[in-house]
Amino acid sequence: MTEELERFIESSKVEIEAQLIQTIDTLQTPDSLKKSMIYSLQAGGKRIRPVLLMAVLRGFGMPIRKGMDVACAIEMIHTYSLVHDDLPAMDDDDLRRGKPTNHKVFGEATAILAGDALLTHSFQLISNIDENPALIVSLIREISQAAGAQGMVGGQVSDMEGENKELSIEELEHIHHHKTGDLIIGSLIAGAILAEATEEDILHLRQFGRELGLLFQIKDDILDIEGDADTIGKPVGSDVSNNKGTYPSMLGMDGAKEKLTYHLEAALASLRNVQMDHSLLEDLTNYVAYRNH
Amino acid sequence: MTEELERFIESSKVEIEAQLIQTIDTLQTPDSLKKSMIYSLQAGGKRIRPVLLMAVLRGFGMPIRKGMDVACAIEMIHTYSLVHDDLPAMDDDDLRRGKPTNHKVFGEATAILAGDALLTHSFQLISNIDENPALIVSLIREISQAAGAQGMVGGQVSDMEGENKELSIEELEHIHHHKTGDLIIGSLIAGAILAEATEEDILHLRQFGRELGLLFQIKDDILDIEGDADTIGKPVGSDVSNNKGTYPSMLGMDGAKEKLTYHLEAALASLRNVQMDHSLLEDLTNYVAYRNH
Repeated sequence: MTEELERFIESSKVEIEAQLIQTIDTLQTPDSLKKSMIYSLQAGGKRIRPVLLMAVLRGFGMPIRKGMDVACAIEMIHTYSLVHDDLPAMDDDDLRRGKPTNHKVFGEATAILAGDALLTHSFQLISNIDENPALIVSLIREISQAAGAQGMVGGQVSDMEGENKELSIEELEHIHHHKTGDLIIGSLIAGAILAEATEEDILHLRQFGRELGLLFQIKDDILDIEGDADTIGKPVGSDVSNNKGTYPSMLGMDGAKEKLTYHLEAALASLRNVQMDHSLLEDLTNYVAYRNH
Repeated sequence: MTEELERFIESSKVEIEAQLIQTIDTLQTPDSLKKSMIYSLQAGGKRIRPVLLMAVLRGFGMPIRKGMDVACAIEMIHTYSLVHDDLPAMDDDDLRRGKPTNHKVFGEATAILAGDALLTHSFQLISNIDENPALIVSLIREISQAAGAQGMVGGQVSDMEGENKELSIEELEHIHHHKTGDLIIGSLIAGAILAEATEEDILHLRQFGRELGLLFQIKDDILDIEGDADTIGKPVGSDVSNNKGTYPSMLGMDGAKEKLTYHLEAALASLRNVQMDHSLLEDLTNYVAYRNH
């Protein structure tokens, strides 16, 4: 990772994490709900979606503070999806990033409701930003589309239905596009909307986001096999034992790595079509492909 | 119920139910998710929130079609809350309005995700209406506030925490205000926002909604004891056997009925302060107090 990217990620993370907690902490709501919401927001993670949004703003020469609330909103959506994902009825995970999952600490009912509250609050947060209303409406349109039945939640359902089934590589990519790709794209486009980017730039950023999302997933699948359990924060090989279709299981490790290179190139090519300073996003893309956790 | 009100409710319901299904049916999303969303949207119910929104529009002399999508959005939020409420980790209900609950038919995982998708889609639906953006932003602000941690979801948590506990009447009302009252208020205010009502009228409608919400709850509690199981669609006395604090259990049946009369008068008084044609909403308020299911 370049030093500039590292500094950018670090400072974005510090700001976003402080803001996430503050936003929830001031709500008038039962303590247990507030604690449960904050617990999962504080559980760490790469904060990749907020960082992407802010990198887009920076690339268009805008102050990153302009994107703070929208970045928080997107991180809340991502967080709610993890809380619901971990539930016994879904993936039934006891640990996430080495910490007990939300329902293990607060019980299932509160975990379900904390997820619901995070999702709802994300839209409230966006509706309250100090921007012109047409821009706010565009943001809500983009993000609700990315997060909903036609985006992330739909991908989640396809993923569940794909378990223990023989999937084609196209079906696998379709799942990833929606399950993780759509909210990554949504983060980039939210940044572009805030920066009042042109339609053309938005189109190219969308393409970039599509490639970046795949890159993420392929790399995750590779790390699940080659990574170090302590570094990646979950048992190595857990996808394999969960019988999930992965790039290495379908293409072999060499095939998966070839695919990684292919999508890295495609991502960078799309990025270069956007009329902005690409340096940060380029570094970030390379980092996604070369990271070891 | 007056004939005018009956006609109004009937025609609103027909339109809203058709629109609800059509909105979801055209989504590009896995079939199982779509079916699960539609199943619960089709499960019937009084559609009181859409009807309230439309009655406000009518009272301000606006066409009710203007409120169709927002009414659908609010009904989706109400529906998602029922789907999540019925889950084993929450109320663990096998039946709702005489039909198997969502998770009984589609499984818990799909039920959780269908709820998430309905909630997310409600905001997408509002963001896409053909109104000026400032008005759309006001709607989203109002509705997300009513539905979230400071509104319905917060009320849900308080309700859970209040089970098997000795509650004061103030604590009980606080729960109802948030758990059911806030979205009822949100429906009225959404209608007022769409009608571009004055701040003052919005204030009085809010007060009316507060009283109406309580009225609903008191009457529900009374019907739970005095009602006929077939008419109300659930076993008589189920609140009592669930050990929930209710108005009759805390105030006695006579006390509960006195309280009903008090809030009926208060609701009608607030309503009369709004500069609009009140006839429909007045009939509706009386209906809420005197209904037998």
